Amino acid sequence: MLENLKQQVLEANLALPKYGLVTFTWGNVSGFDKDSGLVVIKPSGVPYEDLSVEDLVVLNLDGEIVEGKLKPSSDTPTHLILYKNFPGIGGVVHTHSPWATSWAQAGKPIPALGTTQADYFYGSIPCTRRMTEQEIKGEYELETGNVIVETFKEINPLEIPSVLVHSHAPFNWGKDANEAVHNAVVVEEVAKMALRTYQINPDAPPMDQELLDKHYLRKHGSNAYYGQK
Amino acid sequence: MLENLKQQVLEANLALPKYGLVTFTWGNVSGFDKDSGLVVIKPSGVPYEDLSVEDLVVLNLDGEIVEGKLKPSSDTPTHLILYKNFPGIGGVVHTHSPWATSWAQAGKPIPALGTTQADYFYGSIPCTRRMTEQEIKGEYELETGNVIVETFKEINPLEIPSVLVHSHAPFNWGKDANEAVHNAVVVEEVAKMALRTYQINPDAPPMDQELLDKHYLRKHGSNAYYGQK
Amino acid sequence: MLENLKQQVLEANLALPKYGLVTFTWGNVSGFDKDSGLVVIKPSGVPYEDLSVEDLVVLNLDGEIVEGKLKPSSDTPTHLILYKNFPGIGGVVHTHSPWATSWAQAGKPIPALGTTQADYFYGSIPCTRRMTEQEIKGEYELETGNVIVETFKEINPLEIPSVLVHSHAPFNWGKDANEAVHNAVVVEEVAKMALRTYQINPDAPPMDQELLDKHYLRKHGSNAYYGQK
Amino acid sequence: MLENLKQQVLEANLALPKYGLVTFTWGNVSGFDKDSGLVVIKPSGVPYEDLSVEDLVVLNLDGEIVEGKLKPSSDTPTHLILYKNFPGIGGVVHTHSPWATSWAQAGKPIPALGTTQADYFYGSIPCTRRMTEQEIKGEYELETGNVIVETFKEINPLEIPSVLVHSHAPFNWGKDANEAVHNAVVVEEVAKMALRTYQINPDAPPMDQELLDKHYLRKHGSNAYYGQK
Repeated sequence: MLENLKQQVLEANLALPKYGLVTFTWGNVSGFDKDSGLVVIKPSGVPYEDLSVEDLVVLNLDGEIVEGKLKPSSDTPTHLILYKNFPGIGGVVHTHSPWATSWAQAGKPIPALGTTQADYFYGSIPCTRRMTEQEIKGEYELETGNVIVETFKEINPLEIPSVLVHSHAPFNWGKDANEAVHNAVVVEEVAKMALRTYQINPDAPPMDQELLDKHYLRKHGSNAYYGQK
Repeated sequence: MLENLKQQVLEANLALPKYGLVTFTWGNVSGFDKDSGLVVIKPSGVPYEDLSVEDLVVLNLDGEIVEGKLKPSSDTPTHLILYKNFPGIGGVVHTHSPWATSWAQAGKPIPALGTTQADYFYGSIPCTRRMTEQEIKGEYELETGNVIVETFKEINPLEIPSVLVHSHAPFNWGKDANEAVHNAVVVEEVAKMALRTYQINPDAPPMDQELLDKHYLRKHGSNAYYGQK
Repeated sequence: MLENLKQQVLEANLALPKYGLVTFTWGNVSGFDKDSGLVVIKPSGVPYEDLSVEDLVVLNLDGEIVEGKLKPSSDTPTHLILYKNFPGIGGVVHTHSPWATSWAQAGKPIPALGTTQADYFYGSIPCTRRMTEQEIKGEYELETGNVIVETFKEINPLEIPSVLVHSHAPFNWGKDANEAVHNAVVVEEVAKMALRTYQINPDAPPMDQELLDKHYLRKHGSNAYYGQK
Repeated sequence: MLENLKQQVLEANLALPKYGLVTFTWGNVSGFDKDSGLVVIKPSGVPYEDLSVEDLVVLNLDGEIVEGKLKPSSDTPTHLILYKNFPGIGGVVHTHSPWATSWAQAGKPIPALGTTQADYFYGSIPCTRRMTEQEIKGEYELETGNVIVETFKEINPLEIPSVLVHSHAPFNWGKDANEAVHNAVVVEEVAKMALRTYQINPDAPPMDQELLDKHYLRKHGSNAYYGQK
């Protein structure tokens, strides 16, 4: 059942330590199968080096476990909200990667300061508002998803495939689990470079809109000409 | 004698270079056996790559050597004070890990700025006061332990399993040697992210109390629901 | 055809991940054969681990493909402009190496603050002006080359073999592909040290001209005495 | 001839890339044999991976080559001045390790802010004055040695076994080549932590003198009690 997707999700989870995005078990990846409406996700608290395809958990979008002996990631309700609200995404990644997490703790969006960000994100990477006491004490992980969705009310999540959750850490997504991890790597790189840019020049303005357009559209959309396609 | 504990303490010491927490021999781990009241600790100045189970030193809580041919870590009296005063701990780790040591040199506690810290520490990680001339010139390593205990007069050491010793470096503990090393890794991560958070936003406030409660209690205590237990 | 040059260009491309200069496919190297007037360059978007000599693309200085089944790097027009305008160079490297890219995003030149830079660069490493809307919307990659050439109107590109393109990233060159990569590594090192120098001493002045002369000329020109030559 | 010393010097040079202290060939180690009055040093510009015992150069303190087919390091005259003026040292290391070099570029000494430094250095690590135009244009490498010696007029070089040369980089020494490399590693660590300490607390004062005494004398001199001796 969903063997291809499981293999993809396994590899995407194993990519987290490979890219230096996680300490211990501080991250999880899921993948979504549009046809069956099912999600495959990492089990909670299992070290990456012990992880195998059999450990992955399969759920439907209501959070009901369809297959798997282990408890799914405690962040599962956040993943599910994102799949329900962001049509077209097929993978979600949560990490505590240190540079992006520092921006999340600072409660600040990562502005588009250069072409590295523009190659993947069509603008700045937003930070959610603080969650309310009620949201935190209620269905916390589900409300984390809701506050992300609220943040993207006027942003296209396919054009900005990452968010910083305030006082917490980044969530990233993509057309599949692999692309979501890819975006998580990019966020970490641009988070690092953005802080250093401001340390060099505290008054650095965002990049010009034309340059942002040029680089984003060089790689995305019908007029893209980067790569071998 | 205490073969299991020795093996644990050996592995915990070897984990220090593996996690990038030490340069040369700048760190040591001990473990405590509640039943016998004995402590197993790294010998002084022995490189990790040369360390074997036979090199470990066994002492009682009065510091009398019960087994071992080598001199114990010069920090042994600090470890012993912690075992005597913090009931429930079974492992102690001292390192000069660079991010945490920078906070210790700055003489500042690491505030709880996000969920990464809240998952392991129920609040900020304190920094001791400077030691007095008398304490330094007296039984220095024992007094280092005493000033740590004084710092935790109104803090539960099981809820905040690390401390920064002023102008020196971190000490960490846990229910066993392995968990103490785990906490030493976390301190290094949150020390790094806290400085960067303030570099991004010098006015970043501590995280909300509700969020701190939520994340700490999600992983600790009778209502914990993280992991496979 | 140009087998030696192809081998050189392949190795120079593979050196980019080896030296930590690239994430994913964020970099490309080309080499120039003066006799034939041909350029060998990395194909667009191909991961370094999959790259072989057969994948490389051969073009003339007008950008016409002479050999190769794949599309050349999207930055090819920039490379060509540099070969046409900087006589004596035989290799060009573009990366998004994070320290140098941070200076590019800040829009600031890297001043010569010490002998590390002086050993390779006879002065500060300039940053181009921002590109105009017209240049960006026009033949963007070609105009990127033109704005670099404009920046070197009064600078000898053989004495300063790197540039920061504003809001973008570094381009580097050298007498061959290997030396260009070498210079890209140096730029990353001096970019890192320059920021830290200012963090230690915000008023640090550039190095003395005599010291700059001494170190640059110790390694370059007819009176050089460094190395075994 | 001096086979033991050569082996030591070879290993010490190979330790530089192992400890992350050098990029390319930016560092060199020498060792001194008191009995014969001879120095063994790395040849100029040879990559560490190609270095063998046969490549090392043997000189007397007047700089006359006694054995070796290659040119010695261009920094040789600096090494020789240190051996002549600092009795008791048996090894010298020069690197451009990035954290220490940043302090050198900033023209600032590294103050003793914590016990990590106090375990190896009995106070702050000085930075030389800028060299004069005459010194730079004259016998530059020899004058570099002289300005280091001048800096230690009132400092015991056995108690502070490193210096930052202004606008340049660190030189380190020790009782042998291995200890000199050890000190070079420590300088890099404390240079890193000192900058971060000031970023956390710009008003951090130097450590207390009693604590400096305690830690330095715990490891050095007749009352030392660290390690297995």
